Amino acid sequence: MSSVRRFTTDRAGDYRWDAVELLRYKEEGSAPFKDITRQVLFAPSDQATELRYFEIAPGGYSTLERHQHTHAVLILRGRGTVRIGTETQPIGERDLVTVDPLVWHQFHAAPDSALGFLCLVSKERDRPQLPDADEPAGV
Amino acid sequence: MSSVRRFTTDRAGDYRWDAVELLRYKEEGSAPFKDITRQVLFAPSDQATELRYFEIAPGGYSTLERHQHTHAVLILRGRGTVRIGTETQPIGERDLVTVDPLVWHQFHAAPDSALGFLCLVSKERDRPQLPDADEPAGV
Repeated sequence: MSSVRRFTTDRAGDYRWDAVELLRYKEEGSAPFKDITRQVLFAPSDQATELRYFEIAPGGYSTLERHQHTHAVLILRGRGTVRIGTETQPIGERDLVTVDPLVWHQFHAAPDSALGFLCLVSKERDRPQLPDADEPAGV
Repeated sequence: MSSVRRFTTDRAGDYRWDAVELLRYKEEGSAPFKDITRQVLFAPSDQATELRYFEIAPGGYSTLERHQHTHAVLILRGRGTVRIGTETQPIGERDLVTVDPLVWHQFHAAPDSALGFLCLVSKERDRPQLPDADEPAGV
């Protein structure tokens, strides 16, 4: 249905949109990560893509991973770093991050700031790969 | 290529991302609109969708139109109003707007504020319809 959904902030100052469910980032124990939540903002039935919002609490991080599907990320609030391949660089509000197929990547919130970002992905996508002893990330 | 593209602001305080071309909203004279620009932020080759950024200057507006494809819009900065069907409501930063197929819609920036928003659409989509004397908007 056509609608306007407002964002509100909770006591911690984190974003929540009306009628948008707050989800776990991944199943606990499935991969290393810390203090991160997920919301699916848009997944229109006529589009093969979904737009998600991830919020990482200060000091938290996403999983170091790679996959065939591309990522298109826009930082919506806060500060942190992104690792792409073997390079790590600072990121802040409204930076655009693109990640090519099979490039290792990981997002960290700054110690004193949350990091919230939009991520555009195909609804049909391959499962992320994790680094292991035989094939560490960045090699 | 994987990258981080920074946004910068020009003299007017408008957003421009590095290496993202600033485009005309539409061909001049093709439809009524005022003071609006377009940037394609993401159009990954493995995704059937593109994410665009529109910026409307204070007092400007997008075309009143409707189409079969859905819109998913997230307000990135500023203030204004959105008309959906026959209703107009105020919108501001981080509001989520969804527009169903064939619903008339139009965005206005406030008189004293720009309105910048992300818009997610399918790469393959039908052409917008304009209201006319036989079928005015909102009927």
